[in-house]
Amino acid sequence: MHMDSGLPINREVLFLVIPEYADWEFALLAPGLRRGFGLWAPQYEVKVVAPDEGLVTSIGGFRCLPDYTFNHLPEDYAALVLVGGMNWWGEEAERVVAIVRQALARQVVVGAICDASAFLGAKGFLNDVDHTSNGLTYLKDKAGSAYTGEARYRNEPSVRAGNLVTASGVGFIDFTCDMLAALNVADAQNIAVMRSAFRSGMIPTGL
Amino acid sequence: MHMDSGLPINREVLFLVIPEYADWEFALLAPGLRRGFGLWAPQYEVKVVAPDEGLVTSIGGFRCLPDYTFNHLPEDYAALVLVGGMNWWGEEAERVVAIVRQALARQVVVGAICDASAFLGAKGFLNDVDHTSNGLTYLKDKAGSAYTGEARYRNEPSVRAGNLVTASGVGFIDFTCDMLAALNVADAQNIAVMRSAFRSGMIPTGL
Repeated sequence: MHMDSGLPINREVLFLVIPEYADWEFALLAPGLRRGFGLWAPQYEVKVVAPDEGLVTSIGGFRCLPDYTFNHLPEDYAALVLVGGMNWWGEEAERVVAIVRQALARQVVVGAICDASAFLGAKGFLNDVDHTSNGLTYLKDKAGSAYTGEARYRNEPSVRAGNLVTASGVGFIDFTCDMLAALNVADAQNIAVMRSAFRSGMIPTGL
Repeated sequence: MHMDSGLPINREVLFLVIPEYADWEFALLAPGLRRGFGLWAPQYEVKVVAPDEGLVTSIGGFRCLPDYTFNHLPEDYAALVLVGGMNWWGEEAERVVAIVRQALARQVVVGAICDASAFLGAKGFLNDVDHTSNGLTYLKDKAGSAYTGEARYRNEPSVRAGNLVTASGVGFIDFTCDMLAALNVADAQNIAVMRSAFRSGMIPTGL
């Protein structure tokens, strides 16, 4: 077993990004996993996966160097997070299908937010599970005929169905909460404290 | 005048980061400036400034390559954003004092969030202006005797006083709104739509 920072490698959470990825959609989850906001102990490592080697630019213009590429991923990891963005409908995203299939087969936690959730719909991953996306109309428009899961669509910021979490792009705070719960990072009370603080902008007592 | 992407260089907004910077604290503002969430036209470029060349790691574990360093900044820019994080009390932050002094003298928009706002307090920049931070007790503890601005402290997520915006770390949504207003990026109605969407997690009609 490979060791890194004292944690076994299967504590790695992979954040998959494609050029013009959405800065805010991982911006609470990654620190929540790696540091814990002072509310809980860090239990996971964060690794970034991009289509290829080299810098990837976010929607906000930050240039990120990935840790892994689509073709060179660790075999074992704790969770896969598909970060939304502007390029989930091109060739790079096609290469994600096999990665998602493998993650679901291994029953690790999978999160997909914003266009990444619509991508899951387009690839038939949402037809038999409760889910959400950037609105049902948007999802159906993007996903096309491969999507037949309308009865399982829920108009909520984020939906957790066991190991699968889907969210709208503006639902990133709830997405974070659902992912932290799915990964058993924090108890419900601390997650509620975090959600309330970031939603309201007010510092809770003791944070 | 140097031209980049068709915009004069003084449309650059500089995001100043120090290792272990907070991912969420710029994560709405930078995309809001560079892309506009479909609510307004992009009017600014985003550039990242770090203490030195080479990668800077965020609290969330993302590795960012800066565009500029503290010693090599453009002479002209539209705004300076001090992103909070874990290392605003060391040698790297000391080098930011002269940058802030110059930005304030030029009357460009300056934003400071989380520990970066407490840093401004510690360097005497908040004594004669309305401001906020991570709570008054926290600010006084961090800033020490150089801070005498208690009468101007406001217990709000974000406070705009002309060209100066300060915010708590959890107040990042309101910080984004105040900075977008200070930079005349969007009108009040569109800013309110954005604030409501990200706070509630629900997609507004037409977004």
